[in-house]
Amino acid sequence: MMATIPLRGKQIHTGGATLAERYREVRRTTEVLAAPLSPEDCTVQSMPDASPVKWHLAHTSWFFETFVVEPRLEGYRPFHPEYRVLFNSYYNTIGAQHPRPARGMISRPSLAEVLAYREHVDRHLLALVGGEAALPRASTIALGLHHEQQHQELIVTDVKHMLSLNPLHPGYRAAAAAPAPAAVAEKLRWHTHPGAVALIGHEGSSFSFDNERPRHRTLVEPFALASRPVTNREFLQFMQDGGYERPDLWLSDGWDAVRTQGWQAPLYWSRSTDGWQLHTLGGTRPVVLEEPVCHVSYFEADAFARWAQARLPSESEWEIFAARAPVEGNLLESGGLHPSPLCAAAGDSPAQLFGDVWEWTRSAYAPYPGYQPPAGALGEYNAKFMVSQLVLRGGSCATPQSHLRASYRNFFPPHARWQFSGIRLAKDG
Amino acid sequence: MMATIPLRGKQIHTGGATLAERYREVRRTTEVLAAPLSPEDCTVQSMPDASPVKWHLAHTSWFFETFVVEPRLEGYRPFHPEYRVLFNSYYNTIGAQHPRPARGMISRPSLAEVLAYREHVDRHLLALVGGEAALPRASTIALGLHHEQQHQELIVTDVKHMLSLNPLHPGYRAAAAAPAPAAVAEKLRWHTHPGAVALIGHEGSSFSFDNERPRHRTLVEPFALASRPVTNREFLQFMQDGGYERPDLWLSDGWDAVRTQGWQAPLYWSRSTDGWQLHTLGGTRPVVLEEPVCHVSYFEADAFARWAQARLPSESEWEIFAARAPVEGNLLESGGLHPSPLCAAAGDSPAQLFGDVWEWTRSAYAPYPGYQPPAGALGEYNAKFMVSQLVLRGGSCATPQSHLRASYRNFFPPHARWQFSGIRLAKDG
Amino acid sequence: MMATIPLRGKQIHTGGATLAERYREVRRTTEVLAAPLSPEDCTVQSMPDASPVKWHLAHTSWFFETFVVEPRLEGYRPFHPEYRVLFNSYYNTIGAQHPRPARGMISRPSLAEVLAYREHVDRHLLALVGGEAALPRASTIALGLHHEQQHQELIVTDVKHMLSLNPLHPGYRAAAAAPAPAAVAEKLRWHTHPGAVALIGHEGSSFSFDNERPRHRTLVEPFALASRPVTNREFLQFMQDGGYERPDLWLSDGWDAVRTQGWQAPLYWSRSTDGWQLHTLGGTRPVVLEEPVCHVSYFEADAFARWAQARLPSESEWEIFAARAPVEGNLLESGGLHPSPLCAAAGDSPAQLFGDVWEWTRSAYAPYPGYQPPAGALGEYNAKFMVSQLVLRGGSCATPQSHLRASYRNFFPPHARWQFSGIRLAKDG
Amino acid sequence: MMATIPLRGKQIHTGGATLAERYREVRRTTEVLAAPLSPEDCTVQSMPDASPVKWHLAHTSWFFETFVVEPRLEGYRPFHPEYRVLFNSYYNTIGAQHPRPARGMISRPSLAEVLAYREHVDRHLLALVGGEAALPRASTIALGLHHEQQHQELIVTDVKHMLSLNPLHPGYRAAAAAPAPAAVAEKLRWHTHPGAVALIGHEGSSFSFDNERPRHRTLVEPFALASRPVTNREFLQFMQDGGYERPDLWLSDGWDAVRTQGWQAPLYWSRSTDGWQLHTLGGTRPVVLEEPVCHVSYFEADAFARWAQARLPSESEWEIFAARAPVEGNLLESGGLHPSPLCAAAGDSPAQLFGDVWEWTRSAYAPYPGYQPPAGALGEYNAKFMVSQLVLRGGSCATPQSHLRASYRNFFPPHARWQFSGIRLAKDG
Repeated sequence: MMATIPLRGKQIHTGGATLAERYREVRRTTEVLAAPLSPEDCTVQSMPDASPVKWHLAHTSWFFETFVVEPRLEGYRPFHPEYRVLFNSYYNTIGAQHPRPARGMISRPSLAEVLAYREHVDRHLLALVGGEAALPRASTIALGLHHEQQHQELIVTDVKHMLSLNPLHPGYRAAAAAPAPAAVAEKLRWHTHPGAVALIGHEGSSFSFDNERPRHRTLVEPFALASRPVTNREFLQFMQDGGYERPDLWLSDGWDAVRTQGWQAPLYWSRSTDGWQLHTLGGTRPVVLEEPVCHVSYFEADAFARWAQARLPSESEWEIFAARAPVEGNLLESGGLHPSPLCAAAGDSPAQLFGDVWEWTRSAYAPYPGYQPPAGALGEYNAKFMVSQLVLRGGSCATPQSHLRASYRNFFPPHARWQFSGIRLAKDG
Repeated sequence: MMATIPLRGKQIHTGGATLAERYREVRRTTEVLAAPLSPEDCTVQSMPDASPVKWHLAHTSWFFETFVVEPRLEGYRPFHPEYRVLFNSYYNTIGAQHPRPARGMISRPSLAEVLAYREHVDRHLLALVGGEAALPRASTIALGLHHEQQHQELIVTDVKHMLSLNPLHPGYRAAAAAPAPAAVAEKLRWHTHPGAVALIGHEGSSFSFDNERPRHRTLVEPFALASRPVTNREFLQFMQDGGYERPDLWLSDGWDAVRTQGWQAPLYWSRSTDGWQLHTLGGTRPVVLEEPVCHVSYFEADAFARWAQARLPSESEWEIFAARAPVEGNLLESGGLHPSPLCAAAGDSPAQLFGDVWEWTRSAYAPYPGYQPPAGALGEYNAKFMVSQLVLRGGSCATPQSHLRASYRNFFPPHARWQFSGIRLAKDG
Repeated sequence: MMATIPLRGKQIHTGGATLAERYREVRRTTEVLAAPLSPEDCTVQSMPDASPVKWHLAHTSWFFETFVVEPRLEGYRPFHPEYRVLFNSYYNTIGAQHPRPARGMISRPSLAEVLAYREHVDRHLLALVGGEAALPRASTIALGLHHEQQHQELIVTDVKHMLSLNPLHPGYRAAAAAPAPAAVAEKLRWHTHPGAVALIGHEGSSFSFDNERPRHRTLVEPFALASRPVTNREFLQFMQDGGYERPDLWLSDGWDAVRTQGWQAPLYWSRSTDGWQLHTLGGTRPVVLEEPVCHVSYFEADAFARWAQARLPSESEWEIFAARAPVEGNLLESGGLHPSPLCAAAGDSPAQLFGDVWEWTRSAYAPYPGYQPPAGALGEYNAKFMVSQLVLRGGSCATPQSHLRASYRNFFPPHARWQFSGIRLAKDG
Repeated sequence: MMATIPLRGKQIHTGGATLAERYREVRRTTEVLAAPLSPEDCTVQSMPDASPVKWHLAHTSWFFETFVVEPRLEGYRPFHPEYRVLFNSYYNTIGAQHPRPARGMISRPSLAEVLAYREHVDRHLLALVGGEAALPRASTIALGLHHEQQHQELIVTDVKHMLSLNPLHPGYRAAAAAPAPAAVAEKLRWHTHPGAVALIGHEGSSFSFDNERPRHRTLVEPFALASRPVTNREFLQFMQDGGYERPDLWLSDGWDAVRTQGWQAPLYWSRSTDGWQLHTLGGTRPVVLEEPVCHVSYFEADAFARWAQARLPSESEWEIFAARAPVEGNLLESGGLHPSPLCAAAGDSPAQLFGDVWEWTRSAYAPYPGYQPPAGALGEYNAKFMVSQLVLRGGSCATPQSHLRASYRNFFPPHARWQFSGIRLAKDG
């Protein structure tokens, strides 16, 4: 049963913990993720889409400082006046921003200073939270924690990319024990749905991002959803069938990307005399055929689906099934970082909807009917990105488990591959 | 009542004309559009998105040669063997293509040779059509004619852009008589709809593109649609209220475009000591305040709607209203090329849905539920572009009238401004 | 013997013709060069470094209008007020310029209008010249004629490049008779020079560009110059010896160009099943082994010389020999456009110094000691380009014969290949 | 008097120290320069032209490992096999290279590992050197030390640039005491030279780079050289006279740079309400008017000279004077990093030729007559860069003093500004 914290008439569900406890736990998790990394690792920006870990550590603190501590704590002196600009990601309402592609120039503040900044913000925020029954800005704190969890995944994602560019092939941490000789993945089955006018979007008073609301009606026609994600074995068949050489399988923009980027396999695959190798957070190892294929773009997901005579699901279709699936254990928190062992789908629902790979949908990222962004600067959190991106659903092995839910909408442009993104097939019913 | 031509069990509606008559008429119209242009005008490519007129003239012929004449006319010798590559736009199934950004390099074939190519294709196609009761490939011919009508609009659109880059400010043709001192546009009213599960998509056996099908159910919640497009007067208010300086009004990608492209007004507007001037097909003239604003990107349409505390319609909402509106006269064919005089909305339906400006919708371009692209090369006609674009509806002053219909889906990326694109507002009901 | 025209105390040598006659002849030659080209051919700009023929035709007229007619002819009305900007190449002193990379956008004025512009300028200039004994601005007219001759070569050079991008492989004009089965080029010999403090730079009162002056002392150490340019046969040996695959042969910037541009042979060479083919002004034909290699960059010339255990000459070395060589017939004016048949070197001087290919020197383009640019706008003619370019000497098959002289300094950046540029080797003595 | 070390018949001058002592000293100086920097500071690459300090530390060790230890020390095991590629700058003869623009991706090896690498190389090299009377590869060691001194200056130069991009405006180290209220710089005087055939290039058996040889004859006409470098006060007059707005003062490529880069002052100048500020290694401070202007490109130096009705010297002119000037103290080693106090020129020679700013010459970087690059990989040290660069002479406040000499040739492309580069004027005599 969920504990709740009174919040000016609303309830913040924190899963049995006080908000302060929850705050401490999320903040500490972020630092645990950065712990295996050197100051140098935390400074490098591998591409404009990615950010240095140090920047993630500081920006998540900036969020609490800017949206919680400063407006509420009288006489608060910012840790450093320049941080307002330096660690603002994209909030024009707050003011100017350090240019995103130049985040890797910030050798200073040092990692140690950024950790001191985190401690400074924590101390003041907890002082603010501690004494009051009716929490000030509790919903903003909850938002800040979910925001920080998003950056936890980005830390892992961006570090993986950064290390992949290093010719020494370092791992983020010691390699996990070699994956057990994998059982063959279950034969792919199709779970059918008769179509309906269904409700999707976040329900109830527990936390959600603004873009998951309002809960609203959606019309789906009869369809079927695959029982599990596409595996490396299946994707290799696509490759062996000329998948990357046949323009008829690709969207026009996708085919351009294949040629101009020289794509011949998912990101992080490399061909060796021993077959396909995979760059992972534990170093380089062979591709395991039974694992879900990961680090594919929307273009590749779409081309694979066309080759398989199927299609990608819409986000409505996905959510209708996910709403009844259990949120499974995620391996980031339980110690693993490679995709979970494949489990057989139990009962009448697709498996592995959560915690293996983000699953590309065919749905363009757009506001739900009736959507209103929050007032003020936080209205920039999601709303201004609602164009030219595709929705992904589910959550990956790098997504914090407590962060997963059926209504969660992730989104990236169709060429993005450095996210933990994979494929689940759908079909018309 | 519509005349029909028997077509292996299907009917081709040609509005009372035989298919051969219709063919001749459409082909002639294209040449009439090119007639005011010199060989030099027809050769220049003003940007990679646009094509030279000569290329449009040849490519539309290539379409008939490749998809109708060659497969059906025994012993046919292509007009020129290299044209197969040179005038293939994007059909990978047919083979290689001359690179799109290099279409402006083709000084040869000359305009005269391209016109001879058109005549050659016409002669052979009409010979093929002439003698038979059951027309070979009649549906492909119909497709080719609608394809050519699309290129008629592109000819006008691309010429307008090309001439806008010429510091001599030439017009495409003699300026139309100065627009009559315009009546003030009608006060904007809102036409409401109670919401429904409605059917959209093309109905019946008359011609449509594949992307308009299948007709299918769509769910719309209560909404209201503006009685007419946004006018220059209204857009100027947005500009005067700092529309191009306020990031809070813009999508993130849109704000990037404002800054990197230096947008300060719609395309073709220029500031002079006499106020805002407009580059038109008849030369430069003052902006007429009561005309629909035109040549705005999706980003500008979206920002304007946010400023106006409204939103853009979805394509479902648009089509539901349009299905009951009359397709109004279009001025391209009746002699005008500037947007139509504003007429008062009659009855219970929004006005000017057709024939003034293409109207940006908030809907990402995607396949309809159950959509199947045609088999073979023609499957590339629409399907492979269904990502990263937005749907526009209605039709502009440059759209052939016989080409307009409620289910027609035009699509462009959100930054595109050189199309005749404007804004119609919507609201939640 | 040379006729001269009195020029306020100076003499203009016009080779026996009056200045008016010379003017008419040069202007007519330009038009003859454009005559085989369609209006479309004359409009296309194939790359930012090249210009449309129409632009060349107009700019050379702009030169006379701006620097001769306007300042001297009272009451002169410019042909078109916008041409001042449109056809200004780079004279900031005169005012704004149409951007160079956008010269291909100028479909209007038409070719016919540009020819009318030429006629207009000619008429007024000749009226000005006709009546006076002491010619106004005769030296500027002489400069304008040499300027126009430079553009004659550029017309041929730019047309060749433009046609090379056309997949129809058109020729500029009917192919010349197949080159006679070429005699083997003479064995390369070395002409030695003992070194000296010599004088170089233009001597006497006949025409020269400002950059050829002042005549000045230069110190050369003992050296040897090859008796003839490098042939295609020799260059092919370099290629077969891995010339384009061995970084040790290349300057660092040159090796970058090889890799990023994908160079594998001189410009206009293409491999076919019949061996190496050459794009020429007469269409495509096999590479003739005994002809001088042409259309190589400085980087290729330098790499070849290193491979051949030689080096490129300095411009001083080149000029010392050229000063005693006869200026040979050039084939542009005598009807040929491919490089001249190889003649044996007669006597004690290298052959083919003029009229085959421009010869890259190792000398950076810089002002001569004591150089002063002309006052006013014409000071921009040469002076502002004296950095980051290399000097070429001699003259090509496309250079007007009357334009050639030992002191002439051509200059291009080291990656340029679309000029008629070849290689002559030198060695330390 | 200089001590010498026997070297297979040659002498290595080490200024009284043994080669081993000299090696230790140079290596230690490099580490002292890096000491004020954090691991993060040492990792960032601020632009493709610059390198991370960590890379400089490793590459200079790679040089000794590759060219001295590996070829001579039997059984030597490289510190890390991947370093051969990772820290190879540009030696194609040695093999592949990590791409220069990606040097900032190398978070690993860590700074600590790189310092261990240095220690490893030092230990083996000194073991090699220690026991032998006739030193193996002593000339290569001497080259390696001068190479490392070049990188010492680059460390300072690149750190300065990197810190300039940090909005926190950090200094490299504590600011030096505020510069004493500077005496007004001496009035600029002109030292004349009557012209001569003189000898330049390195003389004698002491160390020089290959590009300083062979000593050879050069012809100079009468000229005059300014008694001191141009000061900030003088450059400000140029700016106030519209220097950055007048195209007539600039080379064409320079004017392009002004407009596309938005240059309005030397690099590191910024306008504040208190006047012009300067980013320095000690943080931001006001521009001191009497100091030599620094961080100007060749284009700016050339434009200033034109404005001042002078010109830049040739490298021959410069060296003729420098050969008789004393090599003055350089402040890097004596504790200062800002340009030296201006001293009055004593006697008959220009002052400050060494140790303030590198002085742009008008001479394109090219091989001296008779130049032969060294055999093998070290032939790539200088020779392959001899195009598209200009020679600078003298040496800056960041140049190691023992590294300075009259024949030293530095070289950079004309747009480079991040070097400590300034201006000395010359005139025709």
